[in-house]
Amino acid sequence: MITSGLIGISINNANTKHTMLKFEFKNPTKIKFGKGQIESLSKEIPANAKVLMLYGGGSIKTNGIYEQIKNALKDFQVVEFGGIPANPEYAVLMQALEIIKKENITYLLAVGGGSVIDGTKFLSAAALYTGNNPWELLAKRIDKGMPFGTVLTLPATGSEMNSGAVITRSETKEKLAMGGPGLFPEFSILDPTVVQSIPQKQLANGITDAFTHVLEQYMTYPTEAFLQDRFSESILQTLIEIAPRIMKDPSDYAAASNFMWCCTMALNGLIKNGVPTDWATHMIGHELTASFGIDHARTLAIITPNLYNYKFDAKKEKLAQYADRVWGIKDGSIDEKAHAAIKKTELFFHSLGIKTKLSEYTNDYKGTAESIAKRFTDRGWMGLGERRDIKPSDVEKIVTMSY
Amino acid sequence: MITSGLIGISINNANTKHTMLKFEFKNPTKIKFGKGQIESLSKEIPANAKVLMLYGGGSIKTNGIYEQIKNALKDFQVVEFGGIPANPEYAVLMQALEIIKKENITYLLAVGGGSVIDGTKFLSAAALYTGNNPWELLAKRIDKGMPFGTVLTLPATGSEMNSGAVITRSETKEKLAMGGPGLFPEFSILDPTVVQSIPQKQLANGITDAFTHVLEQYMTYPTEAFLQDRFSESILQTLIEIAPRIMKDPSDYAAASNFMWCCTMALNGLIKNGVPTDWATHMIGHELTASFGIDHARTLAIITPNLYNYKFDAKKEKLAQYADRVWGIKDGSIDEKAHAAIKKTELFFHSLGIKTKLSEYTNDYKGTAESIAKRFTDRGWMGLGERRDIKPSDVEKIVTMSY
Repeated sequence: MITSGLIGISINNANTKHTMLKFEFKNPTKIKFGKGQIESLSKEIPANAKVLMLYGGGSIKTNGIYEQIKNALKDFQVVEFGGIPANPEYAVLMQALEIIKKENITYLLAVGGGSVIDGTKFLSAAALYTGNNPWELLAKRIDKGMPFGTVLTLPATGSEMNSGAVITRSETKEKLAMGGPGLFPEFSILDPTVVQSIPQKQLANGITDAFTHVLEQYMTYPTEAFLQDRFSESILQTLIEIAPRIMKDPSDYAAASNFMWCCTMALNGLIKNGVPTDWATHMIGHELTASFGIDHARTLAIITPNLYNYKFDAKKEKLAQYADRVWGIKDGSIDEKAHAAIKKTELFFHSLGIKTKLSEYTNDYKGTAESIAKRFTDRGWMGLGERRDIKPSDVEKIVTMSY
Repeated sequence: MITSGLIGISINNANTKHTMLKFEFKNPTKIKFGKGQIESLSKEIPANAKVLMLYGGGSIKTNGIYEQIKNALKDFQVVEFGGIPANPEYAVLMQALEIIKKENITYLLAVGGGSVIDGTKFLSAAALYTGNNPWELLAKRIDKGMPFGTVLTLPATGSEMNSGAVITRSETKEKLAMGGPGLFPEFSILDPTVVQSIPQKQLANGITDAFTHVLEQYMTYPTEAFLQDRFSESILQTLIEIAPRIMKDPSDYAAASNFMWCCTMALNGLIKNGVPTDWATHMIGHELTASFGIDHARTLAIITPNLYNYKFDAKKEKLAQYADRVWGIKDGSIDEKAHAAIKKTELFFHSLGIKTKLSEYTNDYKGTAESIAKRFTDRGWMGLGERRDIKPSDVEKIVTMSY
């Protein structure tokens, strides 16, 4: 999931020399990282708070996290709201909002992955909203919300350390981003031991999600942001390093702790400072989720290699740098290295058990490219990517390549 | 300059397996980075604020920064206080404190390098202090201070994005660290064009200061903090990349912008998350400044190679990793790579015009090792370094090696 606040598209001419861009960066979330940090939860919430604890499908009740949290909060008034679905649904969140008002809740605690945290961000804004239509919050910059913290149970989206959210409204088939400086969690607890109870499929999704978050902020054109490039490469290298370990044994603390920290650092705003960003893969991928219900991360794996092949000339210099520094491909021309890097990326997704062709997910793909292109045209999305030059007709070709 | 809050010494047994350590991280400072950001200064300070603008020796009056700031603040009530010296002196700061009280100042603005910013941090705490002896603030954790921002004119210490300060009191020959979560700048403006007016000597010092800040948080023993290691290596590689460019032409924006961002990232708390830290070089280096007035960064260059040679067995695995990843030394045994890395580090300092022998700074070095060791014994500093195993007798040997 990505959000408006995190998408910093800037328009640049391909032929000019690109200096580090101007940027603003502020991230006030307090991270409490490591085994046993859940115990310290009570220190982070005001003593007189009335807490609404939000969670998803209930896996926290079977993996021990629920008991740890209830125990840490034993001296607080706690109301619970479970059942927030994988794409946080507006109608469900409106039920939670009713409880917040009825019970005079003063503090929100998200226990879950990106969906629960995103839903809690919406509720943080909605709790202080005085108008008649909370849906309009998705079009506003949120400067202040009800304070909230998170206990992360599924590393992937980075929502635990940013101020963005994506909310779904099935009634109107909308999936929209929201955010603002008022929606940073006050604290997030990252205990890598939670990783051991995550199913293989979600581990693969999490690694893929974080990996593509970095790529969206890195695989553009060369700039003079030397340090930011290396930070992005650091996250990619570390994800590649730990992926086979975490897939083999999610209780491997070294792999789990690095996996968790990589996911957070991939989308907390740090690596986008001063660089152009793409995000076209996410824009297209969202449509595949909307059309076929394919997991978000898997849609990114489907689109990424084809987008890079389609925009090869525009991205080949950066692809070659990535080939060299991340994959250790030292030989060959820029074109050869760049092609090898795309192949390596696709093979990396395969190594996680992630398929990269749309036809491997559905037989009903005919016409998808045209219909997505039409949706983009209808919305006026006439130029995506770091140069805003990916038109709906280009989207159609990229999706066709992904069949 | 380093501060208590940033020195996270942890004791570890050399023979155990080292997982990523538990950590807390929160850094709320807003960074405004890029050419022209000074213009936006007025947006960051409350409209009704009465501002005390603090600066150093007055170089801002010759390089144009003073005019830019006065122009940006033309709608504010501004009082000025110049003349904060290179090691911010308590007696001078007490004069500024008097002005803060007399003029009912509500906001502080530091315009300068680490010394001006550190002095401003002390004043932020002192302005809200109600006791009789502000010096005692150096022993306290500061949870709240008068709000302040900074305009960085000299990249080096990282003080623009951390909550620590080092204050000097010549009257009692003390140089002490202070800090706390209340002493983060509200904002810091980092405009790389300021670098063009910095003298060569201070550029060399800044690069060396940032480089050794990273080394103190990296050159310990291997842990499973794979991402943090790579972030540290990223800063070191980038400093090595830009050093010759910035020394040759400080108006080179690519070099200046990366230099500036490296200095900030080297000591904003990010790279120490989850790893052991050393800081013995800083502890010893401070004594060389106290004894001979040698620039802080240069004392670090004198001590670093000798400390690494002295603690070779304890650090050689990490030195070999650094040799490989930062200096590209791929061949040889661990010992050979580690030795080569120490040599490369020393040559890097030399390439900046920084001498690495105490005898190159003073003829009066005889007895220095013994007197520093005695001072450490008198203070009860019985164990420095990441394993707290560097005793005063070891300090004596390290300093002797540095002659």
